[in-house]
Amino acid sequence: MPIEVLDNELTAQRLSRLNEALGSGMFVHVRDMLHNMAASDIAFILESSPPKTREVLWQLIDQEHTGDILDELGEDLKDQLISQMAPERVARAATGMDTDDLAYILRSLPDTLYNQVLHSMSSQDRARVEKALSYPEDTAGSIMNTDTVTLRPDVNIDVILRYLRIRGELPDATDTLYVVDKRDQLLGGIKITHLLTCNPDTSVRDVMDPDLEGIPVGMSDTEVAQLFERHDWLSAPIIADDGKLLGRVTIDDIVDVIREDAEHSMMGMAGMDDDEDTFGPVLKSTFRRSLWLTINLFAALLAASVSNMFEGTLEQFATIAILMTIVPSMGGVAGNQTLALVIRGIALGHIGQSNSRWLIGKELAIGFLNGLLWSVLVFGAIWLWKGDMALGALIGGAMLINMTVAGLAGASIPLILKKLNIDPALAGGMVLTTVTDVIGLFAFLGLATLFLLN
Amino acid sequence: MPIEVLDNELTAQRLSRLNEALGSGMFVHVRDMLHNMAASDIAFILESSPPKTREVLWQLIDQEHTGDILDELGEDLKDQLISQMAPERVARAATGMDTDDLAYILRSLPDTLYNQVLHSMSSQDRARVEKALSYPEDTAGSIMNTDTVTLRPDVNIDVILRYLRIRGELPDATDTLYVVDKRDQLLGGIKITHLLTCNPDTSVRDVMDPDLEGIPVGMSDTEVAQLFERHDWLSAPIIADDGKLLGRVTIDDIVDVIREDAEHSMMGMAGMDDDEDTFGPVLKSTFRRSLWLTINLFAALLAASVSNMFEGTLEQFATIAILMTIVPSMGGVAGNQTLALVIRGIALGHIGQSNSRWLIGKELAIGFLNGLLWSVLVFGAIWLWKGDMALGALIGGAMLINMTVAGLAGASIPLILKKLNIDPALAGGMVLTTVTDVIGLFAFLGLATLFLLN
Repeated sequence: MPIEVLDNELTAQRLSRLNEALGSGMFVHVRDMLHNMAASDIAFILESSPPKTREVLWQLIDQEHTGDILDELGEDLKDQLISQMAPERVARAATGMDTDDLAYILRSLPDTLYNQVLHSMSSQDRARVEKALSYPEDTAGSIMNTDTVTLRPDVNIDVILRYLRIRGELPDATDTLYVVDKRDQLLGGIKITHLLTCNPDTSVRDVMDPDLEGIPVGMSDTEVAQLFERHDWLSAPIIADDGKLLGRVTIDDIVDVIREDAEHSMMGMAGMDDDEDTFGPVLKSTFRRSLWLTINLFAALLAASVSNMFEGTLEQFATIAILMTIVPSMGGVAGNQTLALVIRGIALGHIGQSNSRWLIGKELAIGFLNGLLWSVLVFGAIWLWKGDMALGALIGGAMLINMTVAGLAGASIPLILKKLNIDPALAGGMVLTTVTDVIGLFAFLGLATLFLLN
Repeated sequence: MPIEVLDNELTAQRLSRLNEALGSGMFVHVRDMLHNMAASDIAFILESSPPKTREVLWQLIDQEHTGDILDELGEDLKDQLISQMAPERVARAATGMDTDDLAYILRSLPDTLYNQVLHSMSSQDRARVEKALSYPEDTAGSIMNTDTVTLRPDVNIDVILRYLRIRGELPDATDTLYVVDKRDQLLGGIKITHLLTCNPDTSVRDVMDPDLEGIPVGMSDTEVAQLFERHDWLSAPIIADDGKLLGRVTIDDIVDVIREDAEHSMMGMAGMDDDEDTFGPVLKSTFRRSLWLTINLFAALLAASVSNMFEGTLEQFATIAILMTIVPSMGGVAGNQTLALVIRGIALGHIGQSNSRWLIGKELAIGFLNGLLWSVLVFGAIWLWKGDMALGALIGGAMLINMTVAGLAGASIPLILKKLNIDPALAGGMVLTTVTDVIGLFAFLGLATLFLLN
């Protein structure tokens, strides 16, 4: 029996064959190809296609696959496709989806479409999804599934085994069955692998792990992901404040959370929305990126106004103008290194009250040491280039000041922003660069004015 | 029965209680506290502690837990702790570890220690780990475990169920049993959940999924992670080129790969090593960050030498010097936005031969549109500030040129670097900033010289 060896090369080949078929207008052929692909592969191809190709492909996709494919798409593209769909089609697509994914999609719909979709759903589906929507975004509740299989503690394992056989297929990614009492209080759990190997004559209570920890429904999804990573869980039960079992979170949703949080840090530091669609429309992207550029323009004008204060110096010494970008540039890079480290530490939960002081001190020390090192090197470089020892000393001194400030600012800005409930990954870079630009220009031009003008 | 509600608050509390006990020198108490903690929690606390606290904690940890704790640590801290351990202790710690994790640790050891550790291991452990070490780093083979449970196709399910009960506990994160023929060729797989619910009188062959795809042992771990994400796998079989089953990869290792790749992109863009330990020693960090600062110094000097070409203009017009940082700054931000988008697209596997041209065109268009928009705004701002329309027009023109170049460079630099087998996440930011600084200064000072000096 031949086993198909999966490979991304294969996806690439498939992509180019699809493109060929599309190019030559063989739409029936394309439809057949799409029909034989997994939803996740179609989603991948949609994500990798320019808008026009996407539109054609979307027309050719089986209606009954719509939900599964939407499930796998990035938020931006998902919103875009849904906004073009008839509410009935969205409702139909919704039927087969996991509760948490469906709630996620509904949350992003405009109000009128949202109500139309809810209206077109069966009352059972509607109840299920309304419950899920009652949990705030980015909490354990919002990524929770309600498809738990629960057992009572006083039943024998052989009864359970017979029950499972009658019940039939278990929900995807089920690795643990939960044990609850009459009031649905979580008592413990039994791993499926354990069910297979334990003595069938014992009771559930004797076999279960009574130390199974329930995750509070209101915990942030990032914290839940940290727990999954630390304990190598595949799934975890979610409980209400009173200990009642509400559902479970599975590792596939956790992987999405980890991916999203990581993308958020990386894209955020560059001033981009992590939802941004790589192959999205030009105009939408242009306007989206404007906010960041607007803020940067103000920062750049602020830096220019610092230079403006030293107009007299710049008038007399063109060399100062030539060299004045070096100090802010080095401070910016050094500060950004610290910033990235601290933002990662915050995201991983490593930085808290007890160690943030130590960390700021450490980064300040690194900034000062780097400042010493680079002030000597730059002093030498400028002395060599311009043959002016005093100029070298000026720029070296400014460098020492700015890199020390950069270390301090890179470590403390994200921590301060976090305290103020402002996302450090988003605002940190811009605030930091403004600080290192202003301090760098001020230090260099100030020292130059002090020592050269008199 | 009380269920302990886990919470990161709890870890924070534990941390501060530990710190208190450490501070008052109650080491026996600390040892007891550590004794009752999970390895993953101890690892988390070590990661979050300054060096001195770490040293004391490490002394107080149970010897038999060492391996489990090392397993959970970041690479930098792991290396540091291992380098201070006696080879015998490393070897003892190695006994209880997963093969892939052990290989990972051994790979990072210096040669003499490496040989000493291998020498102190049992011959069985040594054979197991030498096999794992034969697979290149960052491939499916390097994150593979060999603890697969395999079945023959012609046995009945009830026989399998009896066999499993005799065999006892299954390896962690086992969700699928693999079916192989006499030559260990992978024929298919049976999900554990399916074993529980299927008819026991059927044969393995009838119940198994014959379409189970084996992952080639040489596939890059990043690609494997992409497959896991797309298909929501919990584990996947790894096969040799001839279809022979070699082992399996589990989702916990994939989560580590995703986390590491994401951190690599984020830290790399800021010029940091993704192994960098948040609470590592100052001097080591200082020297590590120097490489990036050295490169940046050359970039900054290059930019200064561009300004130097226009010394005459700068001598005559101090205002030009005051404003000359604005154009490079805006170009840098716009280019970095594009860069982040493209680096993420490459990491997710969305960008390939078939769509990179389209993407470059799109980003060029966004750059041009942004350039138009900002050149008008900056023209207005400078006209207002300096009351000089010509100056506003000059800076606006330079802005249009630089932002268009930024869009083009931000999209094409990472793609070119990838073609040259240079990591775009590491080198992209520096190359891009150099381009936008040089072009920005050249455009603004060049236009100013052309129109103002004559």
